[in-house]
Amino acid sequence: MTSTTDPKGQAAMGLAVKAADRAHVFHSWSAQSLIDPLAIAGAGGSYFWDYDDKRYLDFSSQLVNTNIGHQHPKVVAAIQEQAAKLCTIAPGFAVDVRSVAARLIAELAPGDLNKVFFTNGGAEAVENAVRMARLHTGRHKVFAAYRSYHGATSAAINLTGDPRRWPSDNGSAGVVHFWGPHLYRSNFHATTEAEECERALAHLEQTIAYEGPQSVAAIILETVVGTAGVLVPPPGYLEGVRAICDKYGIVFILDEVMAGFGRTGRWFAADNWGVVPDLMTFAKGVNSGYVPLGGVIISERIAETFATRPYPGGLTYSGHPLACASAVATINAMRDEGIVENAAEIGETVLGPGLRELAERHPCVGEVRGLGAFWALDLVKDRETREPLVPYNASGADNRSMADLAAACKQRGLWPFVNMNRLHVVPPCTVTEAEAKEGLAILDEALSVADAHCA
Amino acid sequence: MTSTTDPKGQAAMGLAVKAADRAHVFHSWSAQSLIDPLAIAGAGGSYFWDYDDKRYLDFSSQLVNTNIGHQHPKVVAAIQEQAAKLCTIAPGFAVDVRSVAARLIAELAPGDLNKVFFTNGGAEAVENAVRMARLHTGRHKVFAAYRSYHGATSAAINLTGDPRRWPSDNGSAGVVHFWGPHLYRSNFHATTEAEECERALAHLEQTIAYEGPQSVAAIILETVVGTAGVLVPPPGYLEGVRAICDKYGIVFILDEVMAGFGRTGRWFAADNWGVVPDLMTFAKGVNSGYVPLGGVIISERIAETFATRPYPGGLTYSGHPLACASAVATINAMRDEGIVENAAEIGETVLGPGLRELAERHPCVGEVRGLGAFWALDLVKDRETREPLVPYNASGADNRSMADLAAACKQRGLWPFVNMNRLHVVPPCTVTEAEAKEGLAILDEALSVADAHCA
Repeated sequence: MTSTTDPKGQAAMGLAVKAADRAHVFHSWSAQSLIDPLAIAGAGGSYFWDYDDKRYLDFSSQLVNTNIGHQHPKVVAAIQEQAAKLCTIAPGFAVDVRSVAARLIAELAPGDLNKVFFTNGGAEAVENAVRMARLHTGRHKVFAAYRSYHGATSAAINLTGDPRRWPSDNGSAGVVHFWGPHLYRSNFHATTEAEECERALAHLEQTIAYEGPQSVAAIILETVVGTAGVLVPPPGYLEGVRAICDKYGIVFILDEVMAGFGRTGRWFAADNWGVVPDLMTFAKGVNSGYVPLGGVIISERIAETFATRPYPGGLTYSGHPLACASAVATINAMRDEGIVENAAEIGETVLGPGLRELAERHPCVGEVRGLGAFWALDLVKDRETREPLVPYNASGADNRSMADLAAACKQRGLWPFVNMNRLHVVPPCTVTEAEAKEGLAILDEALSVADAHCA
Repeated sequence: MTSTTDPKGQAAMGLAVKAADRAHVFHSWSAQSLIDPLAIAGAGGSYFWDYDDKRYLDFSSQLVNTNIGHQHPKVVAAIQEQAAKLCTIAPGFAVDVRSVAARLIAELAPGDLNKVFFTNGGAEAVENAVRMARLHTGRHKVFAAYRSYHGATSAAINLTGDPRRWPSDNGSAGVVHFWGPHLYRSNFHATTEAEECERALAHLEQTIAYEGPQSVAAIILETVVGTAGVLVPPPGYLEGVRAICDKYGIVFILDEVMAGFGRTGRWFAADNWGVVPDLMTFAKGVNSGYVPLGGVIISERIAETFATRPYPGGLTYSGHPLACASAVATINAMRDEGIVENAAEIGETVLGPGLRELAERHPCVGEVRGLGAFWALDLVKDRETREPLVPYNASGADNRSMADLAAACKQRGLWPFVNMNRLHVVPPCTVTEAEAKEGLAILDEALSVADAHCA
């Protein structure tokens, strides 16, 4: 609710919200005294607004989760109806909305991924997928990529391949990190996508050989790497990993927490390459985060391992009715309104071409990559050397140019998603052509700020 | 919604819900082919019911989480109103309901526990409390009790002291298990509560000495041990652990996921002994699980560690607006309606005396223990030897007598909470005297089934 008749009253409310926040809320990933959280008054569709009635075009989808936009009326109504009926019930029972949510998700999932274990979010989904893989194979090691994010609970953060792992890394959870393909910043000195793919697969298989294939339970990959850079795998890579897993009896886990449910312009990112993993994790887009929900989609073969042997994992809110009801409404609305198709179309016809056009005008843009509603601009000091605009894991003065870029976006009414030397362009999958163009125009202005830091 | 005009139609719906569940839902802690989940049609107050219109008195509070009962109208309304306003927003922003929820929780919490880090549930709360303790102290080891449950993510399950840990135990997370006080099954050969307390504290301090106090980051305890037996600490024990922590600079974490928010007849179980930990975890009762929510309440000293140094943990749904709105409504309703006081009163005047009376009549009852709406019957084959009615971690035929007891309760319309050789009596904190007596009468009949297995 915004008010234009009493702007002073609104502003005072915003200050009160912020003061209470600073007094009692401990924030994620933050130095508590150095943050200045914006107080939010409301949200709708592709926008949210503060108590000064300033509107922001949400080019972050919050944390890349509001795929269906803010306050979708059908999902809101479904939550309200389920709240009136049954808010919660223990996981041991059967409940209509839980059954329907599981069936819809299983129907959308590729191959024989047919059973759903529900969690509260992505980290728990990864924790449980890894547990399933270890018990299914009787092996311990899990391979994960540098340039990845899998969540912040103990096993998930140890799998993660970005600096958020460092403070919580216990170095002993059986995790082996390897390098995935990324032609623009190749570890393998490749010059074509095909060469990068071939060399990355050889690197992975050789690392498995040196770790001992019989000790490797699982390989976990984000189908399209998310926060670590929107890294779209080259053709053949995921198929190659699938073949390596089959060769050595390794469980293939695709983490679709960020890439799933429409983000890439397909229901699941794996559908872009026709690859079927053994386990798939999801969260975020499944219900756009309207109620906390995540889970693991399980192949029939792995489910069979736990047919007569108890699965040793669980949580009080597994298959939470309110969360499941919002997932059912979200999936149905996405289907009825062609939201996945919209993400594909907007990526193909507006965001992709628009961002490539910006790259032509702005020397700070080193590479444009992505698909659907999932894009990144890799920003550089120098296009020749490809030196990142800011150093890896920079903060403070070292990170100045990226901080200035983010501030320039916000000032102009666009809320960006920024990580390291990258600007991610991740609006809701419902974003219209007009909104996408409005955002591109703002980015065009803001990128000039970053250009000033270029060689 | 139940229907008496069309019982056949209802029953068919129940069968359809169950069939869809068996086809696609993967259940917590279960062998998937050996379970037969009851399909639930609805719930209200202290009851829930199936599609055959059979009503169950909920003496489990689901998984000991619906402290406010099922479908409390004020909490349902708050969820519906917040859904209409703002379902979700990223953790980085300030939001009214998140600020208010944090303030209310901080106001209820003892001592200088004044900042709240929100998670989706108890396991993530424990994960983050341990991370905070390790970074605050710069030490790695965490002491946890045998006879405990702290959640199922990697760090949380490694801390856990029941058999659910075994399949996921990686033996390397810096966890040290010790024995807490439990006079009825004493490790210390004590004969009085005072002696058990003194010996348990000496055991803990000696174990710390041999592990190296300078390597111990934290001691984590359930204030009243929950699933592992409703173990009420003897007077002086928690105060003694507090003193040991102070002596060695160890962070004291109280896990109040199950014991908090009214369960023991106080807002927090720690209030029964006037003990103030450095970190306190919560979930379940904070909003009765109507929306997934948990968190850590943080002392000012530990929060200060992360004033200018970033706290390296987070999650997409931290401080979720819908979850926070339901917590605000729950806390206000509990306060307005005297629900915490009701739990204390019902424990003192109905459940405690009633269960002790049952113990007099039923030879299978070895010990009655508890407080508030939090009780356990420790069932034995023989009162003299105190041999448990079933062996530790029994299943199948070995667990027959407990399975029969649970079935006898369900048949008579009471849904029990059973673990190992124990029947826990954990109704909602809103339970009325009449309902409590109805439950006790059913237990009286059902316990005769267990008596048949006694010596």
